[in-house]
Amino acid sequence: MRINGIEKQTIWLNEDGWSVDIIDQTVLPHKFVVVNLKTLDDAAYAIKAMLVRGAPLIGATAAYGLCLALKNDVSDDAMSKACDYLNEQRPTAVNLRWALSVMTNHLSPLPKEARLEAAYKKAAEIVADDIETCRLIGVHGLELIKDIAAKKSPGETINILTHCNAGWLATTQWGTATSPIYHAAKAGIPVHVWVDETRPRNQGASLTAYELGHEEIPHTIIVDNAGGHLMQHGKVDLCIVGTDRTAANGDVCNKIGTYLKALAAHDNNIPFYVALPSTTIDWTLNNGFDIPIEERGQEEVLQMTGRLSSSEKGEMVTIDIAASGSPAANPAFDVTPAKYVSGLITEKGVVEANSSALAELKTELKNVA
Amino acid sequence: MRINGIEKQTIWLNEDGWSVDIIDQTVLPHKFVVVNLKTLDDAAYAIKAMLVRGAPLIGATAAYGLCLALKNDVSDDAMSKACDYLNEQRPTAVNLRWALSVMTNHLSPLPKEARLEAAYKKAAEIVADDIETCRLIGVHGLELIKDIAAKKSPGETINILTHCNAGWLATTQWGTATSPIYHAAKAGIPVHVWVDETRPRNQGASLTAYELGHEEIPHTIIVDNAGGHLMQHGKVDLCIVGTDRTAANGDVCNKIGTYLKALAAHDNNIPFYVALPSTTIDWTLNNGFDIPIEERGQEEVLQMTGRLSSSEKGEMVTIDIAASGSPAANPAFDVTPAKYVSGLITEKGVVEANSSALAELKTELKNVA
Repeated sequence: MRINGIEKQTIWLNEDGWSVDIIDQTVLPHKFVVVNLKTLDDAAYAIKAMLVRGAPLIGATAAYGLCLALKNDVSDDAMSKACDYLNEQRPTAVNLRWALSVMTNHLSPLPKEARLEAAYKKAAEIVADDIETCRLIGVHGLELIKDIAAKKSPGETINILTHCNAGWLATTQWGTATSPIYHAAKAGIPVHVWVDETRPRNQGASLTAYELGHEEIPHTIIVDNAGGHLMQHGKVDLCIVGTDRTAANGDVCNKIGTYLKALAAHDNNIPFYVALPSTTIDWTLNNGFDIPIEERGQEEVLQMTGRLSSSEKGEMVTIDIAASGSPAANPAFDVTPAKYVSGLITEKGVVEANSSALAELKTELKNVA
Repeated sequence: MRINGIEKQTIWLNEDGWSVDIIDQTVLPHKFVVVNLKTLDDAAYAIKAMLVRGAPLIGATAAYGLCLALKNDVSDDAMSKACDYLNEQRPTAVNLRWALSVMTNHLSPLPKEARLEAAYKKAAEIVADDIETCRLIGVHGLELIKDIAAKKSPGETINILTHCNAGWLATTQWGTATSPIYHAAKAGIPVHVWVDETRPRNQGASLTAYELGHEEIPHTIIVDNAGGHLMQHGKVDLCIVGTDRTAANGDVCNKIGTYLKALAAHDNNIPFYVALPSTTIDWTLNNGFDIPIEERGQEEVLQMTGRLSSSEKGEMVTIDIAASGSPAANPAFDVTPAKYVSGLITEKGVVEANSSALAELKTELKNVA
């Protein structure tokens, strides 16, 4: 996708052929900074400190992080320790574990001298697969948008609400929740996106708005409190969000606040879809409430970072925004019960959010694999 | 209520016996600044620039503003001009008009030489009535909290979620939504308050947390996205919010985002109460969706003001927090349908949120008046 008109990915191999470049998403939208990862520690830090975020991109970064570890030591022990270390950086995202298990399953049987090259090849495959997966999510999601467009006057705008950033910045290309939107825009369907700012880290106002702006998709930032009101007044036709982990019964774990929007969509008969690569489904869990919810630091709630409004140099500063001495709690995700989810937009098509539909998908995936 | 251990009101007569002191709420919680109002212009500015906010406090400030005008000129013409001038500072604030009409109805029939003293006396009555109304809301709300405490183990904490600031800073004393909380604490019931930060103006994180902190009520600030998750996990026993206007059918208009919390409370069988003086009920409206919703400036969404974290002097600055060039929408209130409201805590007792219960309250109020 484009930044300032130039095609970019979120992660790519540096021209040196072995180190890895990422976009530092902690300073977006205020600055565009590319960070070069040279070591396992660099990759772990990028995941932990959320220079990269979004389940698929975390997976890709972990895969390359393992490559960087193997560059120093290709032993079983080093590989195992690197995986444990990478895994512990973010507890909720299932793609982290998935990507590392894909890597180790592939690499473990190989002779040590073949591992490094094979690791880079496999990491590149994970990235390529992610791009194709996200493209297909867009192709299937586009049909849902077309169905809504068919019920409106010709040329009438489709209003889509999204939460957090399940955009191309969270993946490698296209995004998950945004892929149907980008595909609709390319198909000439007029879309407008309500962008939840998504406190506390504001990934909506900073990342989703940023990428929609650079792709010239009409959009409007709203506070997280506003979506219900807009739905009550017919200003939302469809919600599409991403997910960090989805249980085998269709319960959806996603950025904190997703549940509230699903409730409002349900109360106002608005379709609420979740876009996801099938790798985001945790087949071991039959209940979303078994998913561990990451509790993050209170400074994310009590402080805010941005660029000084008065500064011509765009100087970034951090301010205290709350009463001093008051503590904060910061659960990072919530679980939306399957009954509030209209469907799951996967690379295999749109699947109902229930155990039997997902069991069918699982069978289909097994047959392919 | 207390600030730094010292009993305060939000508005009081200066020790000179005629000028009026208020707390500048635009710099809370970062600075505690008392502003002395000496003229009609001072009072008008305090209302316009939101040094005072909250319907009851705006009314009290307007009443004293009229006193300050009469100090210079007690003529009918001066009184009428002063009222017009005060009224236009916040054209939508119903209490402003109400307080000024109470004042002029009382003062107009009086001989000119009696007006000034009578004005100060009436303004003091408006303040005293507000304090008593808020106290009674607390007395009635306390019973709801006692009922919940009775179902818990002795000494177990009652967790109450509130949205925005319907605290004593919005009134003169006690507050509306906070009054039952303060009364419970004084009754020795252990309470803990989940404080929604309440974007975009953050009145929860800045004002509610501030006043709870100074009253030593245990509390935790959360982003507006988090309440649903906490409710799903049994961490909220009760919600209490305020209201800007309630329709005669029990639909509640309150700060944007209130509706989402009411939906989550309903989904998790958690009582959702609204605390209000009966003067906040609009008997002319039988549908909350007829209440006009104020659309405020997008800068409230796109920028944030706070104190520089690095600054020892507590310098206040404004930062841009969103992708530059992206527009924002900013509806200030939403309407929670009566079916999601467990009850209305008024100075007359707890009333069901439906047309027949409210019609009974209306009759009772008429009989008293």
